[in-house]
Amino acid sequence: MQKKIVLASTSTLYGEEYLEYLAPVMADLFANISEIVFIPFARPGGISHDDYTRRAAGVFEQKGIRVKGLHTFSDPLRAIRDAQAFFTGGGNTFLLVKQLHDLGLMDALAEAVNAGKPYLGCSAGSNIGGVNMQTTNDMPIVYPPGFKTMGLVPFNLNPHYLDPVPGLEHMGETRETRIREFHTQNNIPVVGLREGNWIAVNGETITLEGKHSARIFLPGRTPYELATGALLKFS
Amino acid sequence: MQKKIVLASTSTLYGEEYLEYLAPVMADLFANISEIVFIPFARPGGISHDDYTRRAAGVFEQKGIRVKGLHTFSDPLRAIRDAQAFFTGGGNTFLLVKQLHDLGLMDALAEAVNAGKPYLGCSAGSNIGGVNMQTTNDMPIVYPPGFKTMGLVPFNLNPHYLDPVPGLEHMGETRETRIREFHTQNNIPVVGLREGNWIAVNGETITLEGKHSARIFLPGRTPYELATGALLKFS
Repeated sequence: MQKKIVLASTSTLYGEEYLEYLAPVMADLFANISEIVFIPFARPGGISHDDYTRRAAGVFEQKGIRVKGLHTFSDPLRAIRDAQAFFTGGGNTFLLVKQLHDLGLMDALAEAVNAGKPYLGCSAGSNIGGVNMQTTNDMPIVYPPGFKTMGLVPFNLNPHYLDPVPGLEHMGETRETRIREFHTQNNIPVVGLREGNWIAVNGETITLEGKHSARIFLPGRTPYELATGALLKFS
Repeated sequence: MQKKIVLASTSTLYGEEYLEYLAPVMADLFANISEIVFIPFARPGGISHDDYTRRAAGVFEQKGIRVKGLHTFSDPLRAIRDAQAFFTGGGNTFLLVKQLHDLGLMDALAEAVNAGKPYLGCSAGSNIGGVNMQTTNDMPIVYPPGFKTMGLVPFNLNPHYLDPVPGLEHMGETRETRIREFHTQNNIPVVGLREGNWIAVNGETITLEGKHSARIFLPGRTPYELATGALLKFS
């Protein structure tokens, strides 16, 4: 089977329902899927695994797809191997990565997705599709045993990418400054993914989708804009 | 000697020179000091240790204080023990903490400061005055061997604290949401320190100083404002 992956900047656009703008994408990604495994470990706002799973189930069940939370399986490794497809929700990337590493699931998940099981990630769930989580915006509320993630794509993502605000008087670093600092220490390309955009992987083809361009950061290069629909290929 | 510590939210206010607003504070903190050790490891924007040290020296030398970069000593542990006083500049907290831990300097620095050697921190340099670095805003561009910091004060700081912007259409987490997520995993009080504020430690007395109130986050409590001049004491 060929890879089918969607890594979205956000789950929810301003003024819309949860996952609303992704409905057509999900219909295609999860065609012929009757049940997905939901990975609730990022726990946005500290929501419980059960409540978060119910929130996702509310959307999927309208489409005739059952949802099981990965936390409900006594053998989560087996659950990943047996799953038809996956959805990893947003929240705190440190929490998500720590949990996946602590349970020894990161590699198994990558293997299942690379073998062709459809994967949807939003925000933190998209970050773990990159080479490592080191371009997350999240606060390090827990200490994961490592920052390596699934590497489903050969670059890193910065979800919820924010452009510098002209005339802003706040002296904290801009997103662009932070990503440039990342490149003083790392050589991995970074895709600044604005809300309303997602990365689509179909087989070996990786494209930028959604309503905006993306900002591309390559080490030692001036950042530039890549139009929606374009291939994400750097080398 | 009694403790003399200043932990500032930022080094630079909008439209001002580097360290300008802190001049009176520094005059008091470094009275009778002829030389300080500057800790340049946070490297804002990837600036070199030498360039960053020159930048700090430019300010201190106008006040008749010599500046030596901690990176220039062949025995940095000895340099900390021999120093009269310290200044740790802002930048990336992960980089700063990794370097201090890798060189085995975190505890020695805390010991020197707790013994009464004056300490000024800005931004990342203030974060390391807290119990741990887990309420930083910075990007995890390197993997430190741990998140523990000096614990000069019995709480954590969130420098460059930003209030939620009403009506903002960006769906990334607000600073307040991030700190609440921290409290789902940790019990440490957090001081949201706005630009223009600093924390002053004089002996056993810890106060909030500067032009704004600070936002205080205690686990399981509604966040509240603390007026400038007030004691920072939670229990």
